[in-house]
Amino acid sequence: MATALRQSAKYSLLGRLAPFVVPASFPSGNAIGRTALPYLMSNQRHSSSGTKMKVDLDSSTGIAVMRFQSPPVNSLSLDFLTEFAINMEKLELDKSCRGLILTSAVPKIFSAGLDIMEMYGKSPEHCGEFWKAVQEMWLKLYGSNMVAIAAVNGSSPAGGCLMALSCDYRIMAENPRYGIGLNETQLGIVAPFWFKDTMVNTVGHRTTELALELGLLYSTPDALRIGLVDQLVPEDKVVSTAMETMTKWFAIPDHARQITKSMMRKPTIDKMVSNRESDIKNFVSFITRDSIQKSLRMYMESLRKRKA
Amino acid sequence: MATALRQSAKYSLLGRLAPFVVPASFPSGNAIGRTALPYLMSNQRHSSSGTKMKVDLDSSTGIAVMRFQSPPVNSLSLDFLTEFAINMEKLELDKSCRGLILTSAVPKIFSAGLDIMEMYGKSPEHCGEFWKAVQEMWLKLYGSNMVAIAAVNGSSPAGGCLMALSCDYRIMAENPRYGIGLNETQLGIVAPFWFKDTMVNTVGHRTTELALELGLLYSTPDALRIGLVDQLVPEDKVVSTAMETMTKWFAIPDHARQITKSMMRKPTIDKMVSNRESDIKNFVSFITRDSIQKSLRMYMESLRKRKA
Amino acid sequence: MATALRQSAKYSLLGRLAPFVVPASFPSGNAIGRTALPYLMSNQRHSSSGTKMKVDLDSSTGIAVMRFQSPPVNSLSLDFLTEFAINMEKLELDKSCRGLILTSAVPKIFSAGLDIMEMYGKSPEHCGEFWKAVQEMWLKLYGSNMVAIAAVNGSSPAGGCLMALSCDYRIMAENPRYGIGLNETQLGIVAPFWFKDTMVNTVGHRTTELALELGLLYSTPDALRIGLVDQLVPEDKVVSTAMETMTKWFAIPDHARQITKSMMRKPTIDKMVSNRESDIKNFVSFITRDSIQKSLRMYMESLRKRKA
Repeated sequence: MATALRQSAKYSLLGRLAPFVVPASFPSGNAIGRTALPYLMSNQRHSSSGTKMKVDLDSSTGIAVMRFQSPPVNSLSLDFLTEFAINMEKLELDKSCRGLILTSAVPKIFSAGLDIMEMYGKSPEHCGEFWKAVQEMWLKLYGSNMVAIAAVNGSSPAGGCLMALSCDYRIMAENPRYGIGLNETQLGIVAPFWFKDTMVNTVGHRTTELALELGLLYSTPDALRIGLVDQLVPEDKVVSTAMETMTKWFAIPDHARQITKSMMRKPTIDKMVSNRESDIKNFVSFITRDSIQKSLRMYMESLRKRKA
Repeated sequence: MATALRQSAKYSLLGRLAPFVVPASFPSGNAIGRTALPYLMSNQRHSSSGTKMKVDLDSSTGIAVMRFQSPPVNSLSLDFLTEFAINMEKLELDKSCRGLILTSAVPKIFSAGLDIMEMYGKSPEHCGEFWKAVQEMWLKLYGSNMVAIAAVNGSSPAGGCLMALSCDYRIMAENPRYGIGLNETQLGIVAPFWFKDTMVNTVGHRTTELALELGLLYSTPDALRIGLVDQLVPEDKVVSTAMETMTKWFAIPDHARQITKSMMRKPTIDKMVSNRESDIKNFVSFITRDSIQKSLRMYMESLRKRKA
Repeated sequence: MATALRQSAKYSLLGRLAPFVVPASFPSGNAIGRTALPYLMSNQRHSSSGTKMKVDLDSSTGIAVMRFQSPPVNSLSLDFLTEFAINMEKLELDKSCRGLILTSAVPKIFSAGLDIMEMYGKSPEHCGEFWKAVQEMWLKLYGSNMVAIAAVNGSSPAGGCLMALSCDYRIMAENPRYGIGLNETQLGIVAPFWFKDTMVNTVGHRTTELALELGLLYSTPDALRIGLVDQLVPEDKVVSTAMETMTKWFAIPDHARQITKSMMRKPTIDKMVSNRESDIKNFVSFITRDSIQKSLRMYMESLRKRKA
């Protein structure tokens, strides 16, 4: 595994690799300078449970399963995103971990996306910090050296859809009540350019244009048809299918797969990294406007009414 | 509505908006500095009829219908394009207009594309002026803040196809005798890079390569299959379906939809704007060559024979 | 035909043509400065047979058929690539040749791709020379002024798939035992960025990402479904269908088709040309590593065992 590579890469893990340009220590496999994390040394199965998610790594298979457990809807709050980033860093550095499965422990929902409470009535400083954490989540996931498979066992709007899109492969439960899509415009807000780029890379320009302008949330058959997800399976088979799929990915030598993944995703990652500060500034300036705050309030009220 | 935005934007209306970068007056909704156009102030239905097209705006619905009425084939002559640009500017500035439907009042044809008479036997100056008007048409339509829907109720080759491609959504009459496509190479001429970019954004790179190299004119089922149009309906339902479709688009807050549209189309618009002068120069130098003039003459003769 | 154009173009034949920018001698058709090749002057059918391939040009139809005859698997050795480049140059300069059909005279295989023997146990200098020849093959084929049709009458992995992808149209034999794809990662090596770009231009970003990361070799129905090939026909009809297809392409004026082809492919060609030296350097540095040499040895041993 590319240990030295992983350590040197702060966010854009894959972003630094040009095809055929392999850092000196890459293929030798020596874990020079690597510090094994204590919790991973005792036995084959390791479990780490924070407030927002639970991570199980089986060193014998090389697969980690991350289960989101932040009811009611696995909102991407600042706490959630921070815990996610710490877990990603640990796994990325762990030599025994080659693959990651993202799934939900909360019924009916994968993740409802960005937590509106982090954007509503908050200071510009807070909004900026929050947005930086959203960027970090994407950089860590879209640029991961691990094989990342989304086991989408519930609805997955907005930021939840982005998490799924940032994986290498998407398996969704075939449940007619589940939806997936970047539906931000329905709330009066706008998906940023790197959400858009990630979706264009997955389903193409025209489908993305239509989906984003209309804030479309796709049913599972439609999501499969447009390529937003790769496979539909019965709900109780989502994680096990992800496990089986992982073996196909593990059959490919890691270094060749990682360089190839970097080659495909590097331009998109580089573009975001070089616009990171202006993206934060734009988000803060947009989200703190009175009119946008009003849209968010109206949306939250409509959610409350729907519940009652 | 984005009034100040619209006024400041000369051609690339959407081209100026970065995601989240919203001009100061944008969300406030104040129509500062806006001058209402006289013909739009009397009542809810406004009609403006020029030589080449008829525009009906229903202020109660926010939908304008523009009907091309330049027989025999709604050719995009310099007069047509100039009238189109003036109408677009008026509607773009009109606060009561949110959506535009383009359709034809001439049976069997949406638009046959660029008027060959503006390119055949004309001075370089005239050809340059003509080409600038073609660019202007595309900039105004592809970058419009309005929801633009093409109600394609007839054949739509070359420049006619470009007009449809520049809208947000395309509904076509399912008539086996109608065709649509960028078929320029069949005439021995070449679609410029921004025609190509608009088609690539709609149907992807490979389909565009094949279509442009072979000058393919697609039947309506094929146009639907490759994504060149979004929907086929019986001929007498084209405009009414466009009306119904508009309500789905109007359900999305204008500012969020407009910023999203800009994000999707800005790179393509910017590229054209920054190459605008060289594109005119290249067109003039190409079209005034003896061999190309000869191709145009042969094509016109073949049209004349087909008629007789 | 674009004689002067062809002569001045060393590798990036189409890469030099901007849309509408046509060299002075282009449409006049005068073969100024062109030297007819002796072997092409005697009669209508010309045949040239080297060690690795046989070329038949029928001047009456304008179609050249190039048959690879390098058993057992038409590997792209340095000798093969050199002979290919010489043949391409001759045909490109030959006024009577408008179209090229690539096919195989070896049963069951179109081409197995790059010859591993040119990369295994060889000096950095040799590897560099070999890689330059691979680049040259792609530049000549992807940028050809001729209509190039791949008549894929056998399996076509890795570099063999690249050759097919670099043509204008792909017809494959519908044989359940044949496969096609850029499967480099299965060997522990990595397809370079311009292999990737060529595939993205054909089947889009997402399909390419999945195909390259997993080193997928597609069955013929799957290849058709994702657009990796354009048409499946019975094995004995592959070349005759290519002949018939050529007539559709010849119906389009050459200059318009060539400028259009250039417009579609120039950005991809330019990107490779401007990174050519670093691409060679990266390849040599990658392929000469101990770990990669070991992967190649293991792969060759597995091939040997499969045979026995």
